[in-house]
Amino acid sequence: MSKIKELGEFKLIHRLASRLKFRAPNTIIGIGDDCAVYPVKSGTNEIISTDALVEDIHFSLSNISPEVLGRKSLAVSLSDIAAMGGTPKRVLVTLGIPKKISVSFLEKLYKGFNSSCNQFKVELVGGDTVSSPKCFFINVSIVGETKTGRLFTRHGARSGDLIFVTGTLGDSSLGLKLLSQNKNWGSSKDRKYLIETHLDPAPRVLEAGILARSNLNITSMIDISDGLVQDLYHICQASKVGARIQEDRLPQSPEFLRTCSKNQINPSPFILNGGEDYELLFTLPADGVKKLKRQFLKAKTLVTQIGEITLKSKKVILKTKDGKNKILPDSGGYNHF
Amino acid sequence: MSKIKELGEFKLIHRLASRLKFRAPNTIIGIGDDCAVYPVKSGTNEIISTDALVEDIHFSLSNISPEVLGRKSLAVSLSDIAAMGGTPKRVLVTLGIPKKISVSFLEKLYKGFNSSCNQFKVELVGGDTVSSPKCFFINVSIVGETKTGRLFTRHGARSGDLIFVTGTLGDSSLGLKLLSQNKNWGSSKDRKYLIETHLDPAPRVLEAGILARSNLNITSMIDISDGLVQDLYHICQASKVGARIQEDRLPQSPEFLRTCSKNQINPSPFILNGGEDYELLFTLPADGVKKLKRQFLKAKTLVTQIGEITLKSKKVILKTKDGKNKILPDSGGYNHF
Repeated sequence: MSKIKELGEFKLIHRLASRLKFRAPNTIIGIGDDCAVYPVKSGTNEIISTDALVEDIHFSLSNISPEVLGRKSLAVSLSDIAAMGGTPKRVLVTLGIPKKISVSFLEKLYKGFNSSCNQFKVELVGGDTVSSPKCFFINVSIVGETKTGRLFTRHGARSGDLIFVTGTLGDSSLGLKLLSQNKNWGSSKDRKYLIETHLDPAPRVLEAGILARSNLNITSMIDISDGLVQDLYHICQASKVGARIQEDRLPQSPEFLRTCSKNQINPSPFILNGGEDYELLFTLPADGVKKLKRQFLKAKTLVTQIGEITLKSKKVILKTKDGKNKILPDSGGYNHF
Repeated sequence: MSKIKELGEFKLIHRLASRLKFRAPNTIIGIGDDCAVYPVKSGTNEIISTDALVEDIHFSLSNISPEVLGRKSLAVSLSDIAAMGGTPKRVLVTLGIPKKISVSFLEKLYKGFNSSCNQFKVELVGGDTVSSPKCFFINVSIVGETKTGRLFTRHGARSGDLIFVTGTLGDSSLGLKLLSQNKNWGSSKDRKYLIETHLDPAPRVLEAGILARSNLNITSMIDISDGLVQDLYHICQASKVGARIQEDRLPQSPEFLRTCSKNQINPSPFILNGGEDYELLFTLPADGVKKLKRQFLKAKTLVTQIGEITLKSKKVILKTKDGKNKILPDSGGYNHF
C-alpha cells in the first residue's frame, strides 16, 4: 500500500483518475490539467478549476491579514484561468470555519474577495459555509472563458520554440522565507516588497488577455505555481520535448537581487524551484518574438525570453553563467504531502 | 461583534454577500440561492454550485465506507442541480487529506465517485488534492444545465398552488439517529434501510428531469436538505407567501412507520425538521396535478401532495391529524455552527 507522500500529488491524481470511466462527449480537457475545458457555444469554450487553501499549510493567520488572504485565495484560481489564456468570469467560495473565526474576520475576508472581484471583473456568485472545528480552509472554484483556437495548454511546445516568462522569479519564495523564518535580511523596503509579493500575488490575467487577443502562435502555456523547473517539466512531459534555460536570463527584481547579494543568499533555489510565482511560462516560435515584445512593452508589463525548447529528451537543462550545461532534476517542486 | 452561531448560516451569507459589489451583466441568479445561474447560449442556462463535507460534522469515518462517502458527497451537489430542474454535467472535487488517509482509502472513495458519475452521466473533470493535517474534507463543485424557461427557483409560488414532495420524509434523519446513538430500534432490515438512506441518499435527478421536460407550470422548487419546514420557509420567504401542510399527508416509508410505532418514537421531528432528505419540494397550480401524477406513475416514482400555498403570511402552518392549525417555527432546521 503506497503512502500518499511517496506517490506525490501528480502520480496520486493520475492513479485516482484512472478509476473514472464516464466522459462527457464534448469535453476538450478533463482531469489532470490546470483547468477542465469544454465548449458552451460556437466559438466559446468554458474553463473551470478549483483550488483549496488550508490554514498552516498554505497560509498562516499569524502573518496574513484576512483581507489579503481573501485576495490571495482568489489569485490562485485566477492564475489557473490565466494559464490557459482564459478570461475569468465567476467564482464559488467554500469556507470551512472553526470557532475561532469571527464574523468580523469573515467580513474582512470578503472585503478582500470584493477587492479582487472588482479588479478582475469576476462575480462571486455563491458558495458554501460549513463548520470545520479543527481547521480553517477556503476552497475557490472558478469559471472562465476562452475563444475557440485561443486556448493555451501544456501540450503544444515544439523543438526550436522560444521560452518566455512574465514578471520576475523567486520573489514569492524568498518572501515566504523572510516571513516564516523571521529573517532580517535586506532593507525593510525590500523585505516588504518580497513579503507582499508572497502574500498578495498578482495573477497574470491582463497578460493572458494580451496573448489571447493577439494572433501570436503560443504553442504552450502554464502558470508557475510549483516552481519554474517543475512547471517547465510539466510542459516538456505533456509536449514530449526538452528545454534549455539560461541562468543569466532568468528575470529577477531589484529587491530580490539586492536582498540576495547583501546577505550571501544563493538565489538559484528561489528562482528555479521556489513556488507560487504565479507568472506565466509559455512558448512560441521565433518569428513571433518581435510582436510579443511590442505588445508587452505597450502594456508596460515585463516579459523575458529565458531559453528554448529542444528535442525529445524531456529533460530541462540549465546553461549556467560559466557556460556549463546542467540537467535539472524533476520534482524539485513543492510536495506538500 | 456577532458570533457566527448566533447569526446562523443564512444571515451570515446575506451579511457577507452585501459586501460584494461586482455583478456580471448577465447573471440570472447570484449569491444566496442553491445554485448560481447564467446563460451560456440561446436557450440554455448553466447552473453551478459548491458543497463541502467535513469529517465529524457531515460524516464519521467510523460508520461510512469510503465508497459510500464518495457517492454521498456527489449526491449533495447533484441534489442542488436537481432542485432547480437542471441536468448535472461535470464536477470538480477537492480533497483535504490528513496523514491517516491512505491511497487505498482514496481509491475506494474514487470508486464511489465513479459509481455516481456513471449513474448520473456526470464527468469528474478535475479538482485539487491538498494536505490538511487536522481534518479530512471533501468539496464538490458542480456544473449543470437547464433549458431557458425550465429553471425552477424558490421565488414563484402563488396562493392556491399545491405543494408536492417526492419520495418519503424522515428516513435519513431517523437513520442518522440510529447510527449515531447506536439504537437497536425496529427490525435489522428496517434499520439497514433507514441507515442506508442516510448514508447513500438518492438525489432526485430523474424526477427533476421529468418536471423539466414536462410543460407543467412548476412555480417553485427546492431540495429538502435542511428539513421540510425550513426549506418550505425558504420558498415562502422568497415567494412572499405562506403555506399550510397536512400532517396526515406527509409521506413516510413503511420502514420509518414500523420503526417509529414499535418504539414509541414521535415521528414529527424527523418528518418536519430532519435534514438531508434530498427530496424535491415543489409547487404548481391545481390544473397540472393530473398530468403530474400520471408522469410520476409512469416513471414509477413517488410524488405526494402535502398541502397548499396560502396568502402573504409567510408562515408555515401544520394542520394536525386532530384538525388543529399549528404555526410551525422557522429555523427549526439544522444549524451546524
